[in-house]
Amino acid sequence: MSKAIYPGSFDPVTNGHIDIVNRALKVVDRLLVAVIGNPDKKPLFSLKDRVRLLKESFKGNDKVIVESFDGLLVDYATKKNVDVIIRGLRAVSDFDYEFQMALTNLEMCPQIETIFIMTDPKYSYLSSSLVKQLARLGGDVGRFVPPHVSKKLIKGRK
Amino acid sequence: MSKAIYPGSFDPVTNGHIDIVNRALKVVDRLLVAVIGNPDKKPLFSLKDRVRLLKESFKGNDKVIVESFDGLLVDYATKKNVDVIIRGLRAVSDFDYEFQMALTNLEMCPQIETIFIMTDPKYSYLSSSLVKQLARLGGDVGRFVPPHVSKKLIKGRK
Amino acid sequence: MSKAIYPGSFDPVTNGHIDIVNRALKVVDRLLVAVIGNPDKKPLFSLKDRVRLLKESFKGNDKVIVESFDGLLVDYATKKNVDVIIRGLRAVSDFDYEFQMALTNLEMCPQIETIFIMTDPKYSYLSSSLVKQLARLGGDVGRFVPPHVSKKLIKGRK
Amino acid sequence: MSKAIYPGSFDPVTNGHIDIVNRALKVVDRLLVAVIGNPDKKPLFSLKDRVRLLKESFKGNDKVIVESFDGLLVDYATKKNVDVIIRGLRAVSDFDYEFQMALTNLEMCPQIETIFIMTDPKYSYLSSSLVKQLARLGGDVGRFVPPHVSKKLIKGRK
Amino acid sequence: MSKAIYPGSFDPVTNGHIDIVNRALKVVDRLLVAVIGNPDKKPLFSLKDRVRLLKESFKGNDKVIVESFDGLLVDYATKKNVDVIIRGLRAVSDFDYEFQMALTNLEMCPQIETIFIMTDPKYSYLSSSLVKQLARLGGDVGRFVPPHVSKKLIKGRK
Amino acid sequence: MSKAIYPGSFDPVTNGHIDIVNRALKVVDRLLVAVIGNPDKKPLFSLKDRVRLLKESFKGNDKVIVESFDGLLVDYATKKNVDVIIRGLRAVSDFDYEFQMALTNLEMCPQIETIFIMTDPKYSYLSSSLVKQLARLGGDVGRFVPPHVSKKLIKGRK
Repeated sequence: MSKAIYPGSFDPVTNGHIDIVNRALKVVDRLLVAVIGNPDKKPLFSLKDRVRLLKESFKGNDKVIVESFDGLLVDYATKKNVDVIIRGLRAVSDFDYEFQMALTNLEMCPQIETIFIMTDPKYSYLSSSLVKQLARLGGDVGRFVPPHVSKKLIKGRK
Repeated sequence: MSKAIYPGSFDPVTNGHIDIVNRALKVVDRLLVAVIGNPDKKPLFSLKDRVRLLKESFKGNDKVIVESFDGLLVDYATKKNVDVIIRGLRAVSDFDYEFQMALTNLEMCPQIETIFIMTDPKYSYLSSSLVKQLARLGGDVGRFVPPHVSKKLIKGRK
Repeated sequence: MSKAIYPGSFDPVTNGHIDIVNRALKVVDRLLVAVIGNPDKKPLFSLKDRVRLLKESFKGNDKVIVESFDGLLVDYATKKNVDVIIRGLRAVSDFDYEFQMALTNLEMCPQIETIFIMTDPKYSYLSSSLVKQLARLGGDVGRFVPPHVSKKLIKGRK
Repeated sequence: MSKAIYPGSFDPVTNGHIDIVNRALKVVDRLLVAVIGNPDKKPLFSLKDRVRLLKESFKGNDKVIVESFDGLLVDYATKKNVDVIIRGLRAVSDFDYEFQMALTNLEMCPQIETIFIMTDPKYSYLSSSLVKQLARLGGDVGRFVPPHVSKKLIKGRK
Repeated sequence: MSKAIYPGSFDPVTNGHIDIVNRALKVVDRLLVAVIGNPDKKPLFSLKDRVRLLKESFKGNDKVIVESFDGLLVDYATKKNVDVIIRGLRAVSDFDYEFQMALTNLEMCPQIETIFIMTDPKYSYLSSSLVKQLARLGGDVGRFVPPHVSKKLIKGRK
Repeated sequence: MSKAIYPGSFDPVTNGHIDIVNRALKVVDRLLVAVIGNPDKKPLFSLKDRVRLLKESFKGNDKVIVESFDGLLVDYATKKNVDVIIRGLRAVSDFDYEFQMALTNLEMCPQIETIFIMTDPKYSYLSSSLVKQLARLGGDVGRFVPPHVSKKLIKGRK
């Protein structure tokens, strides 16, 4: 039974992330959505909130497990006995960063593969930081995130 | 049991292709290596030769099947009941072309996913056309292709 | 009254080209769609056919004029008293080529501006060569080109 | 009478911005230079200063209006009855960011077009942050910004 | 005494190539301009003509030697006892191709370095194929190539 | 006797930097490794530490001089009578930033050349910030930096 890890900050989860999860489940049987506890940039939502928003997004889908982790991704993957990492690939995305991460993980843990999955073109411009910026400026983010995330973002604005 | 298609011209197969096949087999159970019968550019090797060189490269590995196909990739995948397409991704590669193909396939056949697998950095510069160019200029391609392909390329030069 | 030129091979016109024309007409009053008589690559359709397929696509829209030209684009633009060139910009596109052309035209004719217009994301993967490739392989191109172009492509296949 | 918005932080205005404004005026009749009140990064100059430096740069040119705005660009554009956004495009520029913004605006407000205008190659390396960095390190920025901006930057250094 | 090779098709030499040679001579003492005898694409000018046009461009500069070569660049460099290869780098250029070549040469001959030299921004759009295209369409190429090359291109047109 | 400057933050020096220095010494006789005293981002290591770690890395190699500088690179280069700047170029790197800097230096000081040297593919993903991120997360950085830097990074973690 194949299993993979989909790591990210998920600050917050967007429809683009949900699209990647659903596509990944065509290739793997179970997906561990792994929330980075200590991301580089200070997150808007707490780790607890980021995990909860994700869990609510995949409620009822028992092929998806949501967890958080600290430390190196490859150490976490090894501990979880998973050797496939899933990353989303958008036409508009930071290839260099993605490649650097994938190559470093390969160097540190050669048995772990990173596979990239294409998002739907309609999400090709979508990112968590875009959603946060729009919400901060008073924009309607209802088409970019699930309703419970939208509600949370509006609350945060007040 | 998950199955995927790895399409290409394979004119000829290189160590980079073999690396992608081996990595893909960590994610899927069976891989259909599908040789494009009518590629855009006139191939150096005949379809029969391209298939034979591939088959010899994966001799003894019963998870790999080598076939050729004509017509649209998505039609072939549908006929074969496969809904995952594997493509290699090199730091030095033609993203635009890869994306255009992946997006077109998605548009024509939304249930088919394209997933991209990173090659080993040591193959990041390697391509069939490079190998052919080196062979044409008298270079030693022994480090870029399996021995039986190297032999075939040298023969072709004479 | 502002006027612009939208040059291209249009071999054949796609829904992406039509999208660009419609967007351009928000900025300029009249648009001269200028078909390159002698493109670099041998076209599939004759110049006469490419012009006719375009004219049929914009029938009834008197803001759009379709013509063909030979020689340098900047010379043609000067003769037509137009100093704005429109080019489409796709997320998946050949920036380098587009920039080289724009910079060369600027160098040869400093009073002519090139402006780039974004296509709808749903056309971001669409190009004339993709359409021709799909048609050649027996694919249904009905979603990529207007009906009269689709009909012409199917005829050409037989 | 066609009108467009040219949004930016303008922290401070450079010769590259001025070049884009002059080129845009070949295509549109009036240009609203719109200074973002609350940019992502803390600006060096106050909003008042950024507006004043721009106004002085276009003194006497009654086709150019300088204003500031808060909130979403598409909301501001709608309020102003403008449906064309102008962005500069440099050979060295952040396409991904530009595309993400353009696609998001298109998604949120489909009737608004973003058009990209090429800068003169001699400004292709020029940006406000470069100018600020040079000024901070004691460099002469006289060739990159108008004299009144240069004077202001030198004052700020003391 | 340091020496380097500057390889290329030079079909024909442009002001951009001449700029690179002059810049390279600040770093190395002697430069071997090496004309590829058998380029991938059929050249417009014969090997003899390409060499002659280069020689005339560097007449009187005894730090520049013009030669032609067949076979692999690294073999030629080894025979000439040169272990530095010079390549021009333009803002608008084919990085992928340049990198693939540099990495392949490094793999085949680890003691040979490839160094990239930036062209003047005013040549950033300039290439031999652009010059040929302009000449073919009747454009004035006098600002892109030396006078003796311009004359030759005009002759070829008749 | 040719001399060049290799500027950077070196926060801290990595095996990739050391590779570039060794490659550069095939082209130039002496190399001035110039540590930027006041980098844009707050460094992890003090200027004194960054210089010391570099000096220890090139101990015994009298062709390499390590110094720090403040202010503009071109002013420092002029004071040192050096007119060649060396920069590393990785397949995964920030071309835009590198080009902007090179073009600006060219504009401010036309007699200074920037030359780019390719790193070994095995360092193509390596950067100081990656090393710091790995060290912060508890990863083993022994394969990315010299032993004395690794020791210093581990100390800093405690």
